[in-house]
Amino acid sequence: MAPKTGLWFIGARGSVATTATVGALALTAGLTRRTGCVTDLAEVAAARPPGVADLAIGGHDVAGDSLPKRAEALADGGVFGVELARAVHDGLTRVDARIRHGVASSGPHDGQHTGSEGPDEGTQRDAVERISRDLAGFRAAHALDRVIVVDVATTEPPVDVTPELSDLDALERALAAGESPLPLSSLYAYAAFRAGCPVVAFTPSPGPRLPALGQLAERMGLPWAGSDGKTGETLVKSALAPMFATRALRVRSWASYNLLGGGDGRALADPVTATSKTATKGKGLTEMLGEPVDGPLHIDYVDDLGDWKTAWDMVSFEGFLGTRMSMQFTWQGCDSALAAPLVLDLARLVARAHQVGESGPLGALGFFFKDPAGEGGHDLAGQWRALTEWCGRLGGDR
Amino acid sequence: MAPKTGLWFIGARGSVATTATVGALALTAGLTRRTGCVTDLAEVAAARPPGVADLAIGGHDVAGDSLPKRAEALADGGVFGVELARAVHDGLTRVDARIRHGVASSGPHDGQHTGSEGPDEGTQRDAVERISRDLAGFRAAHALDRVIVVDVATTEPPVDVTPELSDLDALERALAAGESPLPLSSLYAYAAFRAGCPVVAFTPSPGPRLPALGQLAERMGLPWAGSDGKTGETLVKSALAPMFATRALRVRSWASYNLLGGGDGRALADPVTATSKTATKGKGLTEMLGEPVDGPLHIDYVDDLGDWKTAWDMVSFEGFLGTRMSMQFTWQGCDSALAAPLVLDLARLVARAHQVGESGPLGALGFFFKDPAGEGGHDLAGQWRALTEWCGRLGGDR
Amino acid sequence: MAPKTGLWFIGARGSVATTATVGALALTAGLTRRTGCVTDLAEVAAARPPGVADLAIGGHDVAGDSLPKRAEALADGGVFGVELARAVHDGLTRVDARIRHGVASSGPHDGQHTGSEGPDEGTQRDAVERISRDLAGFRAAHALDRVIVVDVATTEPPVDVTPELSDLDALERALAAGESPLPLSSLYAYAAFRAGCPVVAFTPSPGPRLPALGQLAERMGLPWAGSDGKTGETLVKSALAPMFATRALRVRSWASYNLLGGGDGRALADPVTATSKTATKGKGLTEMLGEPVDGPLHIDYVDDLGDWKTAWDMVSFEGFLGTRMSMQFTWQGCDSALAAPLVLDLARLVARAHQVGESGPLGALGFFFKDPAGEGGHDLAGQWRALTEWCGRLGGDR
Amino acid sequence: MAPKTGLWFIGARGSVATTATVGALALTAGLTRRTGCVTDLAEVAAARPPGVADLAIGGHDVAGDSLPKRAEALADGGVFGVELARAVHDGLTRVDARIRHGVASSGPHDGQHTGSEGPDEGTQRDAVERISRDLAGFRAAHALDRVIVVDVATTEPPVDVTPELSDLDALERALAAGESPLPLSSLYAYAAFRAGCPVVAFTPSPGPRLPALGQLAERMGLPWAGSDGKTGETLVKSALAPMFATRALRVRSWASYNLLGGGDGRALADPVTATSKTATKGKGLTEMLGEPVDGPLHIDYVDDLGDWKTAWDMVSFEGFLGTRMSMQFTWQGCDSALAAPLVLDLARLVARAHQVGESGPLGALGFFFKDPAGEGGHDLAGQWRALTEWCGRLGGDR
Repeated sequence: MAPKTGLWFIGARGSVATTATVGALALTAGLTRRTGCVTDLAEVAAARPPGVADLAIGGHDVAGDSLPKRAEALADGGVFGVELARAVHDGLTRVDARIRHGVASSGPHDGQHTGSEGPDEGTQRDAVERISRDLAGFRAAHALDRVIVVDVATTEPPVDVTPELSDLDALERALAAGESPLPLSSLYAYAAFRAGCPVVAFTPSPGPRLPALGQLAERMGLPWAGSDGKTGETLVKSALAPMFATRALRVRSWASYNLLGGGDGRALADPVTATSKTATKGKGLTEMLGEPVDGPLHIDYVDDLGDWKTAWDMVSFEGFLGTRMSMQFTWQGCDSALAAPLVLDLARLVARAHQVGESGPLGALGFFFKDPAGEGGHDLAGQWRALTEWCGRLGGDR
Repeated sequence: MAPKTGLWFIGARGSVATTATVGALALTAGLTRRTGCVTDLAEVAAARPPGVADLAIGGHDVAGDSLPKRAEALADGGVFGVELARAVHDGLTRVDARIRHGVASSGPHDGQHTGSEGPDEGTQRDAVERISRDLAGFRAAHALDRVIVVDVATTEPPVDVTPELSDLDALERALAAGESPLPLSSLYAYAAFRAGCPVVAFTPSPGPRLPALGQLAERMGLPWAGSDGKTGETLVKSALAPMFATRALRVRSWASYNLLGGGDGRALADPVTATSKTATKGKGLTEMLGEPVDGPLHIDYVDDLGDWKTAWDMVSFEGFLGTRMSMQFTWQGCDSALAAPLVLDLARLVARAHQVGESGPLGALGFFFKDPAGEGGHDLAGQWRALTEWCGRLGGDR
Repeated sequence: MAPKTGLWFIGARGSVATTATVGALALTAGLTRRTGCVTDLAEVAAARPPGVADLAIGGHDVAGDSLPKRAEALADGGVFGVELARAVHDGLTRVDARIRHGVASSGPHDGQHTGSEGPDEGTQRDAVERISRDLAGFRAAHALDRVIVVDVATTEPPVDVTPELSDLDALERALAAGESPLPLSSLYAYAAFRAGCPVVAFTPSPGPRLPALGQLAERMGLPWAGSDGKTGETLVKSALAPMFATRALRVRSWASYNLLGGGDGRALADPVTATSKTATKGKGLTEMLGEPVDGPLHIDYVDDLGDWKTAWDMVSFEGFLGTRMSMQFTWQGCDSALAAPLVLDLARLVARAHQVGESGPLGALGFFFKDPAGEGGHDLAGQWRALTEWCGRLGGDR
Repeated sequence: MAPKTGLWFIGARGSVATTATVGALALTAGLTRRTGCVTDLAEVAAARPPGVADLAIGGHDVAGDSLPKRAEALADGGVFGVELARAVHDGLTRVDARIRHGVASSGPHDGQHTGSEGPDEGTQRDAVERISRDLAGFRAAHALDRVIVVDVATTEPPVDVTPELSDLDALERALAAGESPLPLSSLYAYAAFRAGCPVVAFTPSPGPRLPALGQLAERMGLPWAGSDGKTGETLVKSALAPMFATRALRVRSWASYNLLGGGDGRALADPVTATSKTATKGKGLTEMLGEPVDGPLHIDYVDDLGDWKTAWDMVSFEGFLGTRMSMQFTWQGCDSALAAPLVLDLARLVARAHQVGESGPLGALGFFFKDPAGEGGHDLAGQWRALTEWCGRLGGDR
């Protein structure tokens, strides 16, 4: 029998996790094609990752609606077919039963970014223990070889990196003293690492990217990947910017506008939170073009659009003899449908990396991220090459 | 002193050749930046090609207006600045004096695609001799190490590949018999090879791509490159299509519309000639996406637009769970300004390849072409990698 | 009880008729809003037309699939909700039972544009009698005050206007002699007029627009409206072109590209048929801008797109001191959903016009058409004004 | 001899005024066509306004560069031809000599929005006297029948309407007491009215729109027009929104993004000032669509773009049976070239209104403005009709 891998979502009833769960069930039942699944392309499958059918799904969430209800709502919004949602209804109910109530707040000082208030949650140390217990219980109940924790919860605002967040020992002391130094996403990452679970940071939230967390992963010998899934406008940017660079065309300005609805849109409408997103979206351009480029970057919430995102980019560039030219593109994508298969890809590839003993930030997975952790650039083709070379090596391992 | 390289244009007074000549003069005089010059990027400069200042320019044409007049007209159309055109006026006059009257017609049977009628031109064999004499004269007059012949003349319609065009010996017999089997672009390529000159086919015309011509290049030990410069919409396609492929997204249809004016636009408005262009534009998509893709491809002449081209592409694609999404882009570029630096790049790189003894179709130059001759695919990033690896090797040669 | 109006579709199982029927049933049952129903805006409702609930629907078709099946297919394509299609299933079945087998071919010489072959159909005179009998039967069965015949069948190619088509007496003689001079759409219009029914020509097919037909309508004292419903790109054009004209901006070129799938798309992919459509699409621009304008107009069939149409227009214009500027737009609409409410609007308004005794081409309905019959221009705002003034007058009548 | 009209610019060396002045000189000299001049369309010319050649131009400014220098810079940026700028050089020098140093600051409390500091400017009452003196001097020097004051200066932030700004008597008392209650644009409007001059508010600055100023205009029997010239994206909106409304299509969201450089762009990059612009841009949509519509509106400064503006709008709408559709447009215009002819139009039409004795806000000129003062809506076609009817009446006057 194939080794079993656990996929544990932080935000298990959100749009991305719900779509990924629907997809995993549908793929296992042979009800849909593998479109969008990068891991099933020959060059990536070469890594010999676990199959989608070998994934057991669970997770934490604080929201109320059940997975079957969430799936119905997404089907109504056109993310996938109504029939498909019905066909996997029972599977969704089973996964839903495995979802544990999450930690709603990252501590007494942070009342703002909680979901629905849970019971009194005590110190962060208590929360860590509770999360670790949930993870251990999941692993035991399904006799899993490993559990990959994937953060697809709502984006958090950026944090100031205090001494406790920079150094693992300082962090441990603070936790031991009953303090609550960790942002919520990092609290989950901390608990996951402590429980021996690799982590995937699919949002721009701090998660495992704080220095103290990186040290913890290293100490535990665990691999992790992140951050901020590259699904739409930034994906296109990372395909187009190298075109200008290798053709020696000088980009004079690059304006990026994003319209989106859905839960994620609402969170990003909060300008503080948006900072987190726009920062990771903007980073790559300078690196790919070799110089900073002028131009606004907006993310606007438009309730009407639901899970559908429309992005418009306008690139003004200069060619031979100073001639001014321009290019614009409009991207109309369904964010959850774009993100969900990548989440499955990442869980499978990180599981394989864990199996063969890799640890630390997996730079070879930069292909999937707006703000890649570890070695590697932003250029999509270069990332593809790094990914496939790494997969080739992984496939050669036992 | 640096070795001197000749750059001989077929269509020397056309928009592309004029812009390239203006650019070469301006770069030599330090009046403009190297924007758009791929060969001056470090990874390509590694090949150690001749500098722009080492190029001596001449060519054939059948049109009347002098280079300074043509430059003035292009400056009025916004291709480059009026001041710049004035600053290189004397240099243009000197190049113009080296332009020889070209062959207007490819033979008695082809009255349709001639330019202004020249004097009675006799057989194709006579024409070959005259062209070869012009090339030899140019080389001698400027003490050139080599002359690269670059075809930037008006696009010709496709030809049926008759036995004379498939086999060099059959071709030689036909020419010896006073027949006129060659399309005009191939007549020039034949004469160039006979005169020991490498060839760059920058248009989709048959030129050196007929099998008999390929055999001739091989026999003469000459390198050549082609065909059809990748300057606008197809360039973008070759950057975007791999994005869909490596993300496992299924492209359902890809519609491509091109609006352009100028001389090239007029030629392409002739549906027979357009066949040549649309064929080479369409080819790459199937290769990059791994399956044929539906969708129209039009090139429309709009007098109003002059040298400026607007292209609009609409890509309809399918993601995870069958979700339908789309992307569209608008490209607004100046064709001559995009093509001119590539023409200089190609002349310099082919000269270097000739110097180090390469021969046959240079697949490593596929980066520059819509319909690359030789080994290699259409994916821009892959082409860039092939180009830079080749340049690295060339740089290592003596 | 309100007077009852019959709505008889030519092409009753096509996408437009099916959507209109679904819509009429859904509106009657209070299952949907009146979005898209122009006649329910106060200024138009002023005419006091019959309500949607007062319409009895029937029609001719030659295609096989039943209305409930067609509705299901359209719902799958996203034209309307799956639930809605189910909710009106029984109503659709009832309407479907009233659909009579239509005339498949306009005569022995026209084998090309038939649908599935019907039984031997005899002369056009026989066909006219059969159609008139169907119309009279429908009127009697439902005790209708009047029946409006609406052509939403597949577009026909343009015809040469022969003497029989220019003059009613010549036409009658030809029919009496057993000849088949009429194109199919005009055969239906002839039969409708003969049966005392007003006609709406929603396609660009000749229909009632042949001079001989116009004379017949006049002789019978019947109103008619046409032709070619203005639903998408041409609608936008008729809103934008007057902007350029009243701002004294000179449009230099206007390129129009249309991508569409569905049955209509397939028919228009036939270049001969497309002529009919592109001719009526192009007409208005010259009138609105006061001078002919350069630029291509394409309609391309892309199977993938189904009932969804994407149009891209590029307008290049000149302002003060000759400055060149541009505007482009992309329209992504669902053709059936745009056309269906207009079909209901037209049936209701033409019924009201008939009730108050109007006859001949109803120029006041130009608002709905690409190629308006009767007096009036193409400018959308002017058409709106003409429509609402006419509706005000109609409302004043008994 | 024709009556002479003065055109006095506030911001006489700005891009709009410079382009208008170049245009007036070029038209007078017969060097350019009347493209963009609404007043020369037959329906508007019917008002019998003064000709462009009858305008004497002068103005206030605080900036340093002379008109010929400013014209040269605009020509370099492609707003008009270099040759044209040269051809009117002497005329520009003559106008430049009539430009008086303006008031740089609206009072001691407003240090933020001054231009280059002038000499000590005393109280607002002193400033008013100085401005009035300049206007009277201009009128006398050129024996003008009337002087129209046109504000094309940099946009100011919105103001709180204090009691002094709401009531003329309170305002007079405050000025008499040596206070400085007026924003700069209103200070100019006050001085203009006091000097018997009609005013055109071409920017969104408060200018004549404060209640106290309206009362002054009434008391003086003077006409005025405003505000905020409708030149680009808002112009298109006012042509398109009525299309959705009259077709009963429900607009669900309308996103508007504007990219612009130039001096105006820089001012609008200041978020406080932008408030003024975005407020007037957003107003009309609700009125035209009959309900408030969701969607962001941004104006972003991109230095690279100069006087060229690119706007992208995305309209999401709902049709029959709830079907979701969308439309997007990109507008690429040259702001100064679009505004300049309207400024000449307005000066000529307001002069004619003054001549025939009209007073108060001229609602019939709403066609030209984003935020029309006086009676009338935002719908472009309705505004055109109101304008041309008014012009017809004006033409009938003596």
